[in-house]
Amino acid sequence: MQNDNEIIYGKNAILEALVSNQRNINKILGSKNNHIDKKTQEIIDWAREKRVLFKFVNKEKFQELQDVAHQGVMAYIAPIEYMDLYDFLAEKKEISKVIILDGIEDPHNLGAIIRSAVCAGFDGIIIPQRRNVLATNTVEKTSAGAINHIKMIKVNSLQNAIEVLKDNNYWIIATDMEAKDNYFDIDYNGMNFALVMGSEGFGVGKTTLKHADFTVKIPIIGNFESLNVANAASIIIYESIRQMIQKPKNNV
Amino acid sequence: MQNDNEIIYGKNAILEALVSNQRNINKILGSKNNHIDKKTQEIIDWAREKRVLFKFVNKEKFQELQDVAHQGVMAYIAPIEYMDLYDFLAEKKEISKVIILDGIEDPHNLGAIIRSAVCAGFDGIIIPQRRNVLATNTVEKTSAGAINHIKMIKVNSLQNAIEVLKDNNYWIIATDMEAKDNYFDIDYNGMNFALVMGSEGFGVGKTTLKHADFTVKIPIIGNFESLNVANAASIIIYESIRQMIQKPKNNV
Repeated sequence: MQNDNEIIYGKNAILEALVSNQRNINKILGSKNNHIDKKTQEIIDWAREKRVLFKFVNKEKFQELQDVAHQGVMAYIAPIEYMDLYDFLAEKKEISKVIILDGIEDPHNLGAIIRSAVCAGFDGIIIPQRRNVLATNTVEKTSAGAINHIKMIKVNSLQNAIEVLKDNNYWIIATDMEAKDNYFDIDYNGMNFALVMGSEGFGVGKTTLKHADFTVKIPIIGNFESLNVANAASIIIYESIRQMIQKPKNNV
Repeated sequence: MQNDNEIIYGKNAILEALVSNQRNINKILGSKNNHIDKKTQEIIDWAREKRVLFKFVNKEKFQELQDVAHQGVMAYIAPIEYMDLYDFLAEKKEISKVIILDGIEDPHNLGAIIRSAVCAGFDGIIIPQRRNVLATNTVEKTSAGAINHIKMIKVNSLQNAIEVLKDNNYWIIATDMEAKDNYFDIDYNGMNFALVMGSEGFGVGKTTLKHADFTVKIPIIGNFESLNVANAASIIIYESIRQMIQKPKNNV
């Protein structure tokens, strides 16, 4: 059915692709030379359950993946499907939280942000068609397969997307090292919001900053310039979760 | 002077090693084929200032670093020096915060945790001699050179280190997915503490958990098992900073 299969690798990435039921998997190959541990057995069992071919092959088959940590498993699989922003908005949850990525170039950072967003129950990741890394197998692996549990939304213009989100009742929160407010000064509860993270070198673009409802920074205490963007995203994502879960203390 | 130089690469890693003044740098090589951007010029200027040889070479010289993102600069440098725990305690700050890593195997995770710890003004990173990745050039690169701004402490036994820390008035906070308390339920203010992060596969060891004063978890909201360990560390590290900076709201 799918002619344009891609290859993904790594136990978690393949397991989550199987379990999530979102992807058409052509076949899974396991290296004869690797020990069948618990996770590999889970993959074998799920493959049987989902009627996906699992086959042991010589390790030479893995040579095309030479420099990656494939962990002895690879799958031929339909690529990640991107969703249209309007389709996403048509079926969104009552309170929706998304991440907008503006110029993230490192696939490891993209994968790590996706994983934290999924853990925090966020709905979607919005990435521009250009000037941003797209979902590659490195992204899938770094996300530990979490990418199968969130809507990936690709847009032509970030500015248009932000306007559309605003029209749909989202607040736009952009990170900026020059912001006056700290990220914990905002009340994240009860609103739809889009958190905009910029590239490590250049931050969020000026036009985007101008259209944001809030700009926030993460305070730097030590003798260093900035956090890694995936860690910065995780810190803000989880501040919104803390506010959601933690009961306010009564200082009466 | 140093015969056991190692090679580090990447603009930030080299710049921070120069600026921090903590390391004996033998020489820095730049690729003739790369454009001299602002950061490279900064390296050249700092090298002159610190009387370190900077030399342009053919890109062939970079072939020994073939698979890494060297960005056209490499330095021959004395390895990271580890500190003894007792020496660290003898000169520690009034309120001291450290990270203990129990079985972190991925150098990218170690580098990312170091960077977040430095940004948050933490004092030290304690790693066991065995069962943990040590400071490699991948760690330096991933930390963006932040490793030069924090004490790296290597210990033979994590259990002993924890006892010594307790004797020195540190509270031990261990992360555990089965913990009852959320990470934001603790009051981090005004105490010395050591935050223990475990390996991705196995978490913090049982003996360590037993000796911890607090065990905390990060709540998972979405359909996924766990966060990446570097992101998890960053979230907890910054919760302690939030509590330090944010003024309590008066609900009178």
